[in-house]
Amino acid sequence: MSATLAADEAIARRRREGQQVISMASGEIGLPVHPELRDRLAHAADRASYGPVAGSLALRTAAAGYWRRRGLDTDPDLVVCGPGSKPLLYALVLAVGGDVVIPTPSWVSYAAHARLAGVRPLSVPIAAGQGGVPDPDLLRETVTAARAAGHDPRSVVVTLPDNPTGTVASPETVRRLGEAARDLDLVIISDEIYCDLVFDPATPAVSPAVFAPERTVVTTGLTKNLAVGGWRLGVARLPEGEAGRALHDRLVGIASQIWSSPVAPVQEAAAYAFGEPPEIVERVAQSRRLHGSVARAMAERFTAAGAILTPVVATCYLYPDFGPLRTHLVRAHGVYNGAELARFLVERHGVGVIAASAFGEPLAALRVRAATSRLYGDTDEERTTALTAADPTALPWIRSSLDRVGEVLADLAGPAFAAPPAASGPAADAA
Amino acid sequence: MSATLAADEAIARRRREGQQVISMASGEIGLPVHPELRDRLAHAADRASYGPVAGSLALRTAAAGYWRRRGLDTDPDLVVCGPGSKPLLYALVLAVGGDVVIPTPSWVSYAAHARLAGVRPLSVPIAAGQGGVPDPDLLRETVTAARAAGHDPRSVVVTLPDNPTGTVASPETVRRLGEAARDLDLVIISDEIYCDLVFDPATPAVSPAVFAPERTVVTTGLTKNLAVGGWRLGVARLPEGEAGRALHDRLVGIASQIWSSPVAPVQEAAAYAFGEPPEIVERVAQSRRLHGSVARAMAERFTAAGAILTPVVATCYLYPDFGPLRTHLVRAHGVYNGAELARFLVERHGVGVIAASAFGEPLAALRVRAATSRLYGDTDEERTTALTAADPTALPWIRSSLDRVGEVLADLAGPAFAAPPAASGPAADAA
Repeated sequence: MSATLAADEAIARRRREGQQVISMASGEIGLPVHPELRDRLAHAADRASYGPVAGSLALRTAAAGYWRRRGLDTDPDLVVCGPGSKPLLYALVLAVGGDVVIPTPSWVSYAAHARLAGVRPLSVPIAAGQGGVPDPDLLRETVTAARAAGHDPRSVVVTLPDNPTGTVASPETVRRLGEAARDLDLVIISDEIYCDLVFDPATPAVSPAVFAPERTVVTTGLTKNLAVGGWRLGVARLPEGEAGRALHDRLVGIASQIWSSPVAPVQEAAAYAFGEPPEIVERVAQSRRLHGSVARAMAERFTAAGAILTPVVATCYLYPDFGPLRTHLVRAHGVYNGAELARFLVERHGVGVIAASAFGEPLAALRVRAATSRLYGDTDEERTTALTAADPTALPWIRSSLDRVGEVLADLAGPAFAAPPAASGPAADAA
Repeated sequence: MSATLAADEAIARRRREGQQVISMASGEIGLPVHPELRDRLAHAADRASYGPVAGSLALRTAAAGYWRRRGLDTDPDLVVCGPGSKPLLYALVLAVGGDVVIPTPSWVSYAAHARLAGVRPLSVPIAAGQGGVPDPDLLRETVTAARAAGHDPRSVVVTLPDNPTGTVASPETVRRLGEAARDLDLVIISDEIYCDLVFDPATPAVSPAVFAPERTVVTTGLTKNLAVGGWRLGVARLPEGEAGRALHDRLVGIASQIWSSPVAPVQEAAAYAFGEPPEIVERVAQSRRLHGSVARAMAERFTAAGAILTPVVATCYLYPDFGPLRTHLVRAHGVYNGAELARFLVERHGVGVIAASAFGEPLAALRVRAATSRLYGDTDEERTTALTAADPTALPWIRSSLDRVGEVLADLAGPAFAAPPAASGPAADAA
């Protein structure tokens, strides 16, 4: 069972039982559907044919335009749409075949996909601050050793920007990844679903498709940008060239046997969204600002409690390391690893987070992932207010979550870190 | 690539190129969405959360009621919903593990699912007229021999009513299947998506869940009943008992990693449909009558041309055997197998059908599957008229397809079978 979805269901149960909870476990985006997007789906409710396995030409063309505006020229005939980027990522593992290199830490489903596909997930650590991309030197070592041992790695999965660390690997790291992948003849599967959620637009994530266009598959979807995870719509961009076209055909064949086609009415709405009309661009910008503001304010609470945190520059995820508090946590709370820490936070305080071990890290790691994307309000009215607020962290319902987490972390950390968190506000947010 | 979806796309291409085509390749149901069902989806367009992996409680409860009304008492906690019954069937193969017995002939995706899951599909022929269920005696022989050879069959897939033969295995065959599965300790995966499309309601298909409740998983969906294939919504009913619950949990775990959850707005519409309000029951009854009328009239054209056809009693599929015309087909047209026959029909006459080899039959078999579900009209107005017509075969657009196929088959069969097809009408339809 996906750790994030399982944690999500556990938190929902607690809430139904009347407990006060702060849900930072799953990264589901708690924001309303943009009214225009909702209307597109409603107007397409009479569309009920399968249509092409790879998705309608209108949707594939819109997705190609989306990538073209980001510097990646794209042939609509090399775009494959599916019911979420998750099934596309799984089908890509099947289509490429062979073992898969995944970064540590990384999203919970990559390793699960490899296991379901009957291949071996090979873990390669990230370099510090370079979340989502296996350290290119270690990638070379690991693949070479695996091949010497008779294994058959054929692909490497990367996440740009990264879940769970909220960081973005530098262009130089991505360039070196591309070089290593070319030398090792690996397909790069680049999960770029957080592409538009880099807080500072001046420093975007750079896709490996820039450096290794002949071997990079890019995936994205509507889930994170537009808060429609429940609509299940993802898109994949296959490489030009003979190998890319062969991979495209295998992917479409697998799609035809596992899911047939993306949901027809959703395709219509998605084609509109990938066309990026001004109201959609503005909505994504609002979400980005909201994530940035709240994630950074929340990061301060963790830092104030003594956790180490690489500055969060994208997504809605924090990945605090409580290693410096290890002795205290064991003595005061009997908490000796990330899973114990997550259990302590949810059972004692109703604060849901995910242990680092779910992301492939060692059991002993005292790290957790906290997502801020559920803290924006309990009603659509609150959430809409949050989207347009100059300082979302000053809104009472967001402020109270921040304060509550600050208190919980103060309790966790004990007297040594009992100081109140630093004041947050526009000035602090810009830090 | 799924043979039916591939054929579908090829026919659509020909149509776009301005060719006159008669599409009997895919079994997609060419009928409009019921307005009430469409409105439910439209009204749910603001639902965008994932919700539970297995589907909402409302949908699972509605599906449980659907099965309860058909004599299968069902716990909503043992219902798992997914984006189509196709992904559920695939995930079940992964969840059960081990090799899979499939009937010959059978739907194109069962064997593909086994191959994608990295297990062995074991083919067992059906007994004459007992489509969808492997002959129980041959099932015993095959599984025993496979185990002796070191293989590990753990499940058997059945289709009730059957695609591609349009027949329904008798309760006695199903009882013997259940007995064999129990003796062999096999899980039965029973695809019952055509359950409500048995032409004579007095002789319904009987589920193996009646005879072997502890080991039978039943799947169905909205695609065939309500012509919303593009909405991708299927449901699975897991068995009571410890093994059933363990299988349920594995299935949900796999679902969480491959597709997350069924599409949220579609779940709302599906809960309404599985609740079976009178207007939905009536719509399904109309579809059933329409399929019965047109499929039987089309069957007469094939029989008149000299093909052998087991009487079609359910679905919208005919499975004619042109074996008696083999010598003529080779001499007159260079057609020596099912694939050549399908190619001849589409290239010379624009009539799309699927060769028996796509359903696991030997290449040499001179059988094809023809679906009538696309012949009900080119516009929603025509299709709605067809749904309520006392004699749909008398409607000009349906009559012209029947006549055209009759002419094509007369050309195929040559002078020996050039007699005009028998008159069809209410009397013939009731046969």
